[in-house]
Amino acid sequence: MKKIILAASLCAASFSHPASAQSDYQADSIFISKIFTAALSEGKCYEVLRHLTQDVGSRLSGSAGAAKAVAYTKEVMQQEKFDNVFLQNVMVPHWVRGAKEQGFIIVGKQKTSVPIAALGGSIATPKEGLKAKVIEVKTFQELRDLGVEKVKGKIVFFNRPMDPAKLNTFVAYAGAVDQRGAGASEAAKMGAIGCIVRSMTTRLDDVPHTGSMRYASGAPIIPAAAISTNAAELLSKTLKEKPETEFYFKQNSETLPDAPSHNVIGEIKGAKTANQYIVAGGHLDSWDFAEGAHDDGSGCVQSIEALRLLKLLGYTPNNTLRAVMYMNEENGLKGGIAYADSAKSKNEKHLAAIESDRGGFIPLGFGIVGTPAQKVKIVSWSNLFSPYGIHELGPGGGGADIGPLGQQGTVLLGLIPDSQRYFDYHHASNDTFDKISKRELELGAAAMASMMYLLDKYGVE
Amino acid sequence: MKKIILAASLCAASFSHPASAQSDYQADSIFISKIFTAALSEGKCYEVLRHLTQDVGSRLSGSAGAAKAVAYTKEVMQQEKFDNVFLQNVMVPHWVRGAKEQGFIIVGKQKTSVPIAALGGSIATPKEGLKAKVIEVKTFQELRDLGVEKVKGKIVFFNRPMDPAKLNTFVAYAGAVDQRGAGASEAAKMGAIGCIVRSMTTRLDDVPHTGSMRYASGAPIIPAAAISTNAAELLSKTLKEKPETEFYFKQNSETLPDAPSHNVIGEIKGAKTANQYIVAGGHLDSWDFAEGAHDDGSGCVQSIEALRLLKLLGYTPNNTLRAVMYMNEENGLKGGIAYADSAKSKNEKHLAAIESDRGGFIPLGFGIVGTPAQKVKIVSWSNLFSPYGIHELGPGGGGADIGPLGQQGTVLLGLIPDSQRYFDYHHASNDTFDKISKRELELGAAAMASMMYLLDKYGVE
Repeated sequence: MKKIILAASLCAASFSHPASAQSDYQADSIFISKIFTAALSEGKCYEVLRHLTQDVGSRLSGSAGAAKAVAYTKEVMQQEKFDNVFLQNVMVPHWVRGAKEQGFIIVGKQKTSVPIAALGGSIATPKEGLKAKVIEVKTFQELRDLGVEKVKGKIVFFNRPMDPAKLNTFVAYAGAVDQRGAGASEAAKMGAIGCIVRSMTTRLDDVPHTGSMRYASGAPIIPAAAISTNAAELLSKTLKEKPETEFYFKQNSETLPDAPSHNVIGEIKGAKTANQYIVAGGHLDSWDFAEGAHDDGSGCVQSIEALRLLKLLGYTPNNTLRAVMYMNEENGLKGGIAYADSAKSKNEKHLAAIESDRGGFIPLGFGIVGTPAQKVKIVSWSNLFSPYGIHELGPGGGGADIGPLGQQGTVLLGLIPDSQRYFDYHHASNDTFDKISKRELELGAAAMASMMYLLDKYGVE
Repeated sequence: MKKIILAASLCAASFSHPASAQSDYQADSIFISKIFTAALSEGKCYEVLRHLTQDVGSRLSGSAGAAKAVAYTKEVMQQEKFDNVFLQNVMVPHWVRGAKEQGFIIVGKQKTSVPIAALGGSIATPKEGLKAKVIEVKTFQELRDLGVEKVKGKIVFFNRPMDPAKLNTFVAYAGAVDQRGAGASEAAKMGAIGCIVRSMTTRLDDVPHTGSMRYASGAPIIPAAAISTNAAELLSKTLKEKPETEFYFKQNSETLPDAPSHNVIGEIKGAKTANQYIVAGGHLDSWDFAEGAHDDGSGCVQSIEALRLLKLLGYTPNNTLRAVMYMNEENGLKGGIAYADSAKSKNEKHLAAIESDRGGFIPLGFGIVGTPAQKVKIVSWSNLFSPYGIHELGPGGGGADIGPLGQQGTVLLGLIPDSQRYFDYHHASNDTFDKISKRELELGAAAMASMMYLLDKYGVE
């Protein structure tokens, strides 16, 4: 007995906590181990994701697939017998790709077909397509330095790669994605008639990676497409050898009137403060030619699984816990905005929101957005996560969908999985279910459930 | 200037090191960041692995593929202009699978074909195959408790799954692999005429996962095969419904006389103590129906890359650095034994040996086998690795091939990558190049190069 008391006091001392905190620490450690065990041995999220990706399929906002995904995830949460499952109305942009794009590198009489994809939000080319000489640039500054005379009437080809030396691929993405988002308008300001952007991936591959673009007000509106990285390399090489090289592309995309859609929400009622909320979420929409397995089917099924695991283990929450499938992260964020607006108007105090939107890979940490005191509190739970290889509790982004909640003082937490493979599949047709590791997906869900549990038990103040 | 001095002394204080150690720490930190940058932006190991897996292909000891792999990796290291590249003779077991196996679950007149693969080292069935009733067990004890009367003349089916709740899949593997290694002899002792073993993977899939088995001396010698996990589930279900179910299998494997083969060794000479060695290695052999991308093409190309990166960055080692491709890890370990024997007979003092044989996944740490003081020294480098997500420096196995060196006082280090996906592909036909992430592979090579650098600079005492 003496030995035990000594050991306990030593442990308590080593964590600079009183004995009661130490016994909480032990209870938490045991409960979290049960969460991980249940996730790995009784997990359901992999099979839910299989259905969402392979049977429901792609689900761009406004599409029939998106409507199916709403119905399916609602049904899944009803089958799990969550206390409430409901839809939230959202009007979303409705952009459609139309018939598959065509792209050709043209040198004299030689035409080489290359894989391209209209960027989300882009207009179509004229019906007969668009053909012009090509100006390759790496930066907006380089484009401006060329001057209008050299750019006018041409297609601008943005070819700055994501920096492979960046350890975190999201940092590399952030350093290149201006070309996709704003490249068309920058090119149009200089008189270009079309815009081709190197796909946002560090891989050399043959699939175009699409994504949102925005037209700047005041600039002429020209069509923009992503080109695969292998084709970008070929086009660049061809231009160096034959500067007279032309590019032809034809795309048929169109923006239709906004369409009605939904966020899907499931909740387990809090036993003490049911009017306080802790939410876990992902976004339900995907790009139109992708199964959206990593982006972001994973985050949706992990959020449902997080609630399911806590329910399975008989946990009675203090606050109301929600799994939220946000609609329209990819090209509008209308779901995230609508969710935050509703929370505000209904006076639903949201303590914390967790988002998983970085792929279903092995979880390594959480990025935290909150006050310094809130960060210190959450970081103090590090020892509870480290046995599961989760070492990165610290500053970082929460997630696009939960961003609007931040303005209401909600602590935002973004699940950080390993980022090495994410951009291999991001916004491309190869983001398919077979790229998912069942165990990695389950571990991410367990990490989210564990974080929800601690947030619920200890609050955020 | 004052500010700088204050900051430097604060830093030094925080690491409890004198100022010179702090300046070493900074220099090491910078050099290691160069290693990681070079690996990610100028890496070659992915393309070497592509050739080794897709062009050379499978390379079981004694096969033509193994001979090609020896020639190819020798050539790669010669092209890198390592100071010495040479072969070391090894006699290896030469087991061949023969024609593809057949397996059937038989219920009355109904025959269901199922995927099986002879275990490495197993004898063939009789030419006409083997058909018998089936006894399913989960443990050797359960088998013994049944008694000879119930087992005699039957096929024993070992069906204990790897425990999915184990976070480290190698722990789950260790808890199940007795069935594969010793199951046949245990069954034969009880009068069984054949042995079928559930594949060693936590996945439910349709590919049999082979691996070594050994016949115990004194026990009758019976044929043994792995069955895919999906088929194991089907067989188990069928047996529950119809205990009279029979199993038929035919395999054509054979052990030929030992064959000559080689370890492949490349080295960069040490400038100070060239008669002291630090080696990095993987095993060159794979199973016969696998490309061996993760097991262990990855470890081979990472070892070559580790030396290449240090050379590329102009590092002049104190000790001689070697990349070693061991032959015959899978079914004999003759290469590892021969390497250690040679080191001993030539009086080559091996300070440390690193092995990568857990797949080309994201690196998380190193397992260390050495004296307590050696472990403390290596663990003191943790802060240099943590920026790269490498947090697990601690006790753990080194690797099978370097085990024999341990008897000479060599510090053994096993690269620890994330283990979640390893057994999805282990010893199976789906262990192919497309399962490799270029960046993960490169990060592993960078981790090995960084560890070699620190071991070389600071020694192990």
